[in-house]
Amino acid sequence: MTLPVFDAAAIEEAATSRLVLDSVRDALIAHAEGRTSVPPPLHMDFPEADGDCHVKAGWIAGAADFTVKIATGFYRNAGLGLPSNHGLVCVVSARTGQIRALLDDRGLLTAWRTAAAGALITHAMARPGADTLGVFGTGEQARLQASWLAKLRPLSTVLVHGRTMRRADALCEELNAGGLPARPASAQEAAAADMVMTTTPATAPVLDAAHVSEGAHVTGIGTDMPHKNELPPELFRRARLIATDDHAQCLDHGDFGHAVRAGAVAPDSDIAVGQLLKTPVERPDSAITVADLTGVGALDAALASAVLGRLPL
Amino acid sequence: MTLPVFDAAAIEEAATSRLVLDSVRDALIAHAEGRTSVPPPLHMDFPEADGDCHVKAGWIAGAADFTVKIATGFYRNAGLGLPSNHGLVCVVSARTGQIRALLDDRGLLTAWRTAAAGALITHAMARPGADTLGVFGTGEQARLQASWLAKLRPLSTVLVHGRTMRRADALCEELNAGGLPARPASAQEAAAADMVMTTTPATAPVLDAAHVSEGAHVTGIGTDMPHKNELPPELFRRARLIATDDHAQCLDHGDFGHAVRAGAVAPDSDIAVGQLLKTPVERPDSAITVADLTGVGALDAALASAVLGRLPL
Repeated sequence: MTLPVFDAAAIEEAATSRLVLDSVRDALIAHAEGRTSVPPPLHMDFPEADGDCHVKAGWIAGAADFTVKIATGFYRNAGLGLPSNHGLVCVVSARTGQIRALLDDRGLLTAWRTAAAGALITHAMARPGADTLGVFGTGEQARLQASWLAKLRPLSTVLVHGRTMRRADALCEELNAGGLPARPASAQEAAAADMVMTTTPATAPVLDAAHVSEGAHVTGIGTDMPHKNELPPELFRRARLIATDDHAQCLDHGDFGHAVRAGAVAPDSDIAVGQLLKTPVERPDSAITVADLTGVGALDAALASAVLGRLPL
Repeated sequence: MTLPVFDAAAIEEAATSRLVLDSVRDALIAHAEGRTSVPPPLHMDFPEADGDCHVKAGWIAGAADFTVKIATGFYRNAGLGLPSNHGLVCVVSARTGQIRALLDDRGLLTAWRTAAAGALITHAMARPGADTLGVFGTGEQARLQASWLAKLRPLSTVLVHGRTMRRADALCEELNAGGLPARPASAQEAAAADMVMTTTPATAPVLDAAHVSEGAHVTGIGTDMPHKNELPPELFRRARLIATDDHAQCLDHGDFGHAVRAGAVAPDSDIAVGQLLKTPVERPDSAITVADLTGVGALDAALASAVLGRLPL
């Protein structure tokens, strides 16, 4: 028997947004409850080609499948006409160890679970009436975060702040084409929206905490390595509620960790994103809330397994 | 484009024994010369199913490809009519990070590289005229080690020692059918052969050092975890030459490490298998020599890449 391999088109067809949102929500709750298993990743460097390879595995205790995800980033590929990132997800039975299938998703599932996690927690923590969104960054995640949040609540305006006007324009055109009213904005304007999402590879804060409005919610999703930083410690100091997708990870290399090391907040001042998704949060209209997402490997397992359940095996 | 997947039959057809022996020899030499990159493996346990998953990666510096190998062992599978081990090898370009192909080899390449490494070093270290082989163990590696050594030098007799006569008989029948003269033997008889290979999962020495003849060579391949042990410290004390496939690994969890901890030999008394393969060893006819193999991940990369070079991509 040949091992089944599904390509990105097949995966895209199988994965409805409802399926992605439900899998990601359940996995975040499982993670908050300590029901996930995520071993330390395997890592290789290829300095001569400016490349690296990460292998991450994840399992939700009791689930039928676990996943092993191979992801490469080779940063000179553009010059060769190739995408910088490549990868695949291997879905394995947690009962028999048999490899069930390979999802040759080119990073699609990782992008979706990241977007879904950001949208879910932003929707859960923002004021019910919040309907303007400020987005920092103009890449794939900027587009996806806005689109997925729009699946959860109506957005009256998306304010896009990018490092170049050309890229901000291009993203707004794309969002408009998808039915979302979007326009380029200054950092100050974007930071003053009801909801703010940061999706950049920045190494210094992209917004000024003083520009964030009372009653706003801010979600940072770009800080996934120690040298990165999107949200200023002062924003955490102002926040009434801080959520992290993984306490230890966010403390180690998230924006939350930067705020703790800067003395802005205590290391135990956060609560788990999954806990907020399970039990809706009460928040006064004047409070600022912040979520710091660094990426949880167990989401891959949940999503890949759910998608595979809808593919013809 | 769909990712190419090759099954065990295609791989078996592409991998000639010359190709396997050459790749493994080159990789062992590269490893001895510090030209390999083998990151710490990723590991997951599934205690409720008595299963585990290991992910190992390897690269030979400068080679076009690296590999990521996923291997599972679920030890209750026999009851379900499934093999205990499953796995595949993912071959990735070390220049662009693009996944080139998947080898759905069901562990075949790992078995071959292990057998080829054992045969190569046994042939390199044994006396030129040595032609009797004692084999401890009756599993797949017992069969493969004898068969691969017979590709390198003529064997007059293979003496098979197993825990049960039934299994030793079965292996001898198989070897005879392949043209190798083999018969079941006591541990003392097998240990007294010109060349001895141990291929068991034993946790205590399988042979008595006093039974090993002057001028014999012994290769142990089964000790790959700290709790395992096939060769007695006294054998290392008697040896004139000790070779290890990976000094640190063998010291940590090979038979060599047991001998060092028992005070039988000094921790720096070994030389690299790859060095002996590169520069033939001089040995008096009366010396005993020993090789301790714990398995080198970079062999996977070399072999998978060589095999892929002969498959229709």
